[in-house]
Amino acid sequence: MRIGKVTGTVTATIKAQGLTGKPLMLVDITDAHGKVVEPAIVAIDTCGAGRGDRVLISSGSAARQTPDTSGLAIDAAIVAVLEHIDTEKQTPRSRGKR
Amino acid sequence: MRIGKVTGTVTATIKAQGLTGKPLMLVDITDAHGKVVEPAIVAIDTCGAGRGDRVLISSGSAARQTPDTSGLAIDAAIVAVLEHIDTEKQTPRSRGKR
Amino acid sequence: MRIGKVTGTVTATIKAQGLTGKPLMLVDITDAHGKVVEPAIVAIDTCGAGRGDRVLISSGSAARQTPDTSGLAIDAAIVAVLEHIDTEKQTPRSRGKR
Amino acid sequence: MRIGKVTGTVTATIKAQGLTGKPLMLVDITDAHGKVVEPAIVAIDTCGAGRGDRVLISSGSAARQTPDTSGLAIDAAIVAVLEHIDTEKQTPRSRGKR
Amino acid sequence: MRIGKVTGTVTATIKAQGLTGKPLMLVDITDAHGKVVEPAIVAIDTCGAGRGDRVLISSGSAARQTPDTSGLAIDAAIVAVLEHIDTEKQTPRSRGKR
Repeated sequence: MRIGKVTGTVTATIKAQGLTGKPLMLVDITDAHGKVVEPAIVAIDTCGAGRGDRVLISSGSAARQTPDTSGLAIDAAIVAVLEHIDTEKQTPRSRGKR
Repeated sequence: MRIGKVTGTVTATIKAQGLTGKPLMLVDITDAHGKVVEPAIVAIDTCGAGRGDRVLISSGSAARQTPDTSGLAIDAAIVAVLEHIDTEKQTPRSRGKR
Repeated sequence: MRIGKVTGTVTATIKAQGLTGKPLMLVDITDAHGKVVEPAIVAIDTCGAGRGDRVLISSGSAARQTPDTSGLAIDAAIVAVLEHIDTEKQTPRSRGKR
Repeated sequence: MRIGKVTGTVTATIKAQGLTGKPLMLVDITDAHGKVVEPAIVAIDTCGAGRGDRVLISSGSAARQTPDTSGLAIDAAIVAVLEHIDTEKQTPRSRGKR
Repeated sequence: MRIGKVTGTVTATIKAQGLTGKPLMLVDITDAHGKVVEPAIVAIDTCGAGRGDRVLISSGSAARQTPDTSGLAIDAAIVAVLEHIDTEKQTPRSRGKR
């Protein structure tokens, strides 16, 4: 999944079957620190996310694995609203060359 | 999904089964402000979109989740014609560091 | 789908089941004007395409939605040979800021 | 699959059905030498991976092909903890121009 | 599919069900001339490929369409060992502006 920030909404008059009434959120994909890495994808919201929220985006067929999105012609969904991103502590389990 | 702008059409003489007669639209993928981020993908239209329209593109298996596109050998479909992209207001719900 | 230009072929001695005898075409992914945006993918041909042809490439599970490719371990197929790419005229239906 | 390094965790209060209680790991995608090529994806852990571990990430529908992740709305999973990456010796079987 | 060159192997102690005993090959994705375009993906080998071999990589659900890989949590497989990449001759069938 990728981290995103909700930046707005889109509205549409002519939609494929099943998309009517679904919230279409505009989301910037970001890294862990909020830097935008891919701007302005559109995702169906399944979590009641609001503008400014940091969210988790599932893409591809994963976006249709929820009761709200099953069978829809969508390839991105908000599947979680993030509370905390923890990148601070480095445990002694670390291995590898890096 | 991604935002796109319809820029033209493509015509083909030899097509895989089921694609005959389907409208093949040329679409530039853009950000929320119309800046092109990926040029010239080809998508099946399920919404009666026209040249210049801003549309929503579903990619991958999502493109086949409509009555018009089920079972076709396609990986991109126009699933909505956009009326409005709202990125203006920032609500007080915003959380996170950014 | 993406626009491509057939630039050659590849031959292989050891292949996964079902790939034997299938034409493996070398294709450059291009924009609408022929500029290469991704070089040298390999796609199964379902249309009798030849070197130099402009073609339509379906990727992912879409590539297996034809009688010739069903169930094969492939992620790209030529599903149409393009005759014409029309990007010239801008109709008055155009909306949006672009 | 892609090689990644676990850099942290994310926590979420509102999640799509089935994601509750699953470990959401923050992972940097790297090359064989630890250089980051894509920062900060989020993957479900199926291997008990810890911070600093080098791991193997399966993306797309592959991420749901484990007993722990079947049917979840996820597109990335940690499917192995790497012990060793061997890129040293070049065997005489090498062919090709490079 | 994409062309790759086998550069090594990875070993892992903790693996998702079904991956135990499968050869995990380190592969650089290249263009037709051997230039690396994406470094260090990891693919299951279904062809007995060796280090230095030029191979064909199927990605996504395509990687699971072989008897050796069906149902595994993998998103990349070596499905052919390449013998020859032919990009030399340009036939008179060529059309298009390029």
